[in-house]
Amino acid sequence: MHSGLDHDSLVHHGRDERRGAIASRHWWERPDLAFRDGSLSLGGRDLYELASTLGTPLYVYSRGRVREKLERIHAALEAERIRHRIFYAMKANRYEPLLQHIQSLGLCGADVCSPGEMALATQTGFSEEEISYTGTSVSNADLDAIARHPDVWINCDSLSSLRRLGERCPGRRVGLRINPGLGIGYGVNELLRYSGSKPTKFGIYESQMDEALQIARRFDLSIVGLHVHAGCGYLSPQLAVFDAILDAIGRFSERVGDIDYVNIGGGLGSPLVAADPELDLAQWARSIASRLGHLDAEIWVEPGDFIVKDAGVLLLQVNTVEQKEGVCFIGVDGGFNIHIEPAFYALPMEVVPCRSAALSDESLQRVTVAGNINEALDLWAQDILLPRVAEGDYLALLNGGAYGSSMSSNHCMRGAFSEYLVP
Amino acid sequence: MHSGLDHDSLVHHGRDERRGAIASRHWWERPDLAFRDGSLSLGGRDLYELASTLGTPLYVYSRGRVREKLERIHAALEAERIRHRIFYAMKANRYEPLLQHIQSLGLCGADVCSPGEMALATQTGFSEEEISYTGTSVSNADLDAIARHPDVWINCDSLSSLRRLGERCPGRRVGLRINPGLGIGYGVNELLRYSGSKPTKFGIYESQMDEALQIARRFDLSIVGLHVHAGCGYLSPQLAVFDAILDAIGRFSERVGDIDYVNIGGGLGSPLVAADPELDLAQWARSIASRLGHLDAEIWVEPGDFIVKDAGVLLLQVNTVEQKEGVCFIGVDGGFNIHIEPAFYALPMEVVPCRSAALSDESLQRVTVAGNINEALDLWAQDILLPRVAEGDYLALLNGGAYGSSMSSNHCMRGAFSEYLVP
Repeated sequence: MHSGLDHDSLVHHGRDERRGAIASRHWWERPDLAFRDGSLSLGGRDLYELASTLGTPLYVYSRGRVREKLERIHAALEAERIRHRIFYAMKANRYEPLLQHIQSLGLCGADVCSPGEMALATQTGFSEEEISYTGTSVSNADLDAIARHPDVWINCDSLSSLRRLGERCPGRRVGLRINPGLGIGYGVNELLRYSGSKPTKFGIYESQMDEALQIARRFDLSIVGLHVHAGCGYLSPQLAVFDAILDAIGRFSERVGDIDYVNIGGGLGSPLVAADPELDLAQWARSIASRLGHLDAEIWVEPGDFIVKDAGVLLLQVNTVEQKEGVCFIGVDGGFNIHIEPAFYALPMEVVPCRSAALSDESLQRVTVAGNINEALDLWAQDILLPRVAEGDYLALLNGGAYGSSMSSNHCMRGAFSEYLVP
Repeated sequence: MHSGLDHDSLVHHGRDERRGAIASRHWWERPDLAFRDGSLSLGGRDLYELASTLGTPLYVYSRGRVREKLERIHAALEAERIRHRIFYAMKANRYEPLLQHIQSLGLCGADVCSPGEMALATQTGFSEEEISYTGTSVSNADLDAIARHPDVWINCDSLSSLRRLGERCPGRRVGLRINPGLGIGYGVNELLRYSGSKPTKFGIYESQMDEALQIARRFDLSIVGLHVHAGCGYLSPQLAVFDAILDAIGRFSERVGDIDYVNIGGGLGSPLVAADPELDLAQWARSIASRLGHLDAEIWVEPGDFIVKDAGVLLLQVNTVEQKEGVCFIGVDGGFNIHIEPAFYALPMEVVPCRSAALSDESLQRVTVAGNINEALDLWAQDILLPRVAEGDYLALLNGGAYGSSMSSNHCMRGAFSEYLVP
């Protein structure tokens, strides 16, 4: 569980009351995301100025935050002397300057799930050996593309795809994506549950392992790794389930024999609201060390959200402020189609005005922030407290760096937005 | 309520036992969508052949069905001698050949909600006078675009947009989108509730009407119409709420005085499962005649779903058939990102094999159809009965014509699909 006292969260989440002058007013403030002279700033850039200059809707990403998150994972695993590799899950955000930045850091490879992502990873400069491919409902066309990239690491998610890979690439090294029958969503979010008591489409179950091994033998496939995706968005309170999943890996590995890697997937979460405890990376790493240390396998991890979610904000302009039946609606120039998490996954995004001269509690009013799509669910936030804003002001939606632009649609032909990686 | 005996539904939904040889086995069969010699056919084309030739994922649309649905609305309204116009809600599907077909029929105008849609409608050949624009959270940039199209019909959704329109286009004719505080979603689907007991972002409430009229006078705006969007997906059982909404329009019109049109929005639904009653268009038209006849205004209606939803199917190829823990998973080569309604709106799509030699009850098995996106919610259908299918077969997902391609995303770089309007 999160102690509330570890150095890491104090520094990064601005709860350090010793810092005096730069002590935070808000749970989300941190050195590279804070109010400076009344303006919200990310990575040293004034977001109000960026929004006015580049126009909205606008995603802005912090280069430094991405590096810091990668370094934090490395540091936590190194503290436990865990041999490991990180693969960035590019489905979270594939904005090319951001992807290029991540590649150039040299701190991770790329986790891909489709031929398109594999091609983009290669284009970005990742070598085949730095790419891990884990798909589901894998078609023959997908397997043909994988066969043309012999050094990409592939994890098979079903007996069917293992057999069809074997037919195409006998002798290839392969990982098995397994399903331990346990999983974690963001809190209790059923939509995001990857595995659990009800059978899911993902991975090979323990009851299928005999047949998996037979198929591998038939095609001389060398099983070099196991992959498990525990879920997504897990924070410290979910680490107990994470432990149980790691324990299950041990059972599968006994069936397979020596392996080179255990890929524990992604799923590391970021706090979305003030009450969310942070993920205690030190404890996370201790769990891995104690549960998987005996396997003598390298630990691979595939974070997406954790690397880019809180590195990005979505800036929107207020075009309407209007009371309707006692509710103050703040209308903005972007809708749920450019970031679907609040509407479809019930994942909140904190709304912060880009300029806020008066942040006293007295100036707060209760508002509902509404997008520009003709659908009732197109609300960014309901019944939240915001300082008074006017038509023309800009709002920042925090935690906008993951699954925003990458999942956006052109619904109502309202799909236009810009992206900007702060230099 | 739907009587179950009206001629319309018997013919169009294949429940007519008198038709002998072509009597349907399935609730969804109709003359242009049926099995012919064991192959599923739409608009006279064999869908298995189309899928093999053009590749999947593939949307196929029936030209004739679109025309028929438009004609049915016209006929129902004409039977009640209701002066009316239809505006096709292009947000439902803007595939250009389909849009071109709809324009060329000359049976409707276009309902648009953004500058992009307005431009596309114009490009497709709709004149400004044939375009009705109803937005929400309308920006100044949107209003500037509308100002450059002086003959487009605009419905203002807030006092703020009415004021800002007045500043740009004094003297313009304008409609008011009103909110009667009542609304209908697909059944009890909260996500799709447009208005109702809780204040929503849409429209001008009765309590705001005095101010709306003041703003109109200040800018010499001529209020020529009222617009109300009752909800979406309504079928016969929801017509009682529809009646109440129409009654509310009367109250608003007394405040405004003479108007040229009442736009009753879209929302006409299509049956999605066997148990869904059809929308009784004759009763729908009688409701309109009895409740709005005294207003001496033209009735405008903006169907989207109703025109295109059941005119289209989504074809996918099976790549995986695998038992996992007692569940038979059918993996296909497309995921929820190319049609989000099942995953995000809980709107079912009937799954039908494109070839089915053995359709006897004995051959049915219980399956779950899973897409190719690494998310647990990416299931097209759960625990449904299907004839035995094999890897390589094609499946048709019915009711794929609306809000599929138009809301699709490139999530996981799995956004590729083709569309085909049967000639």
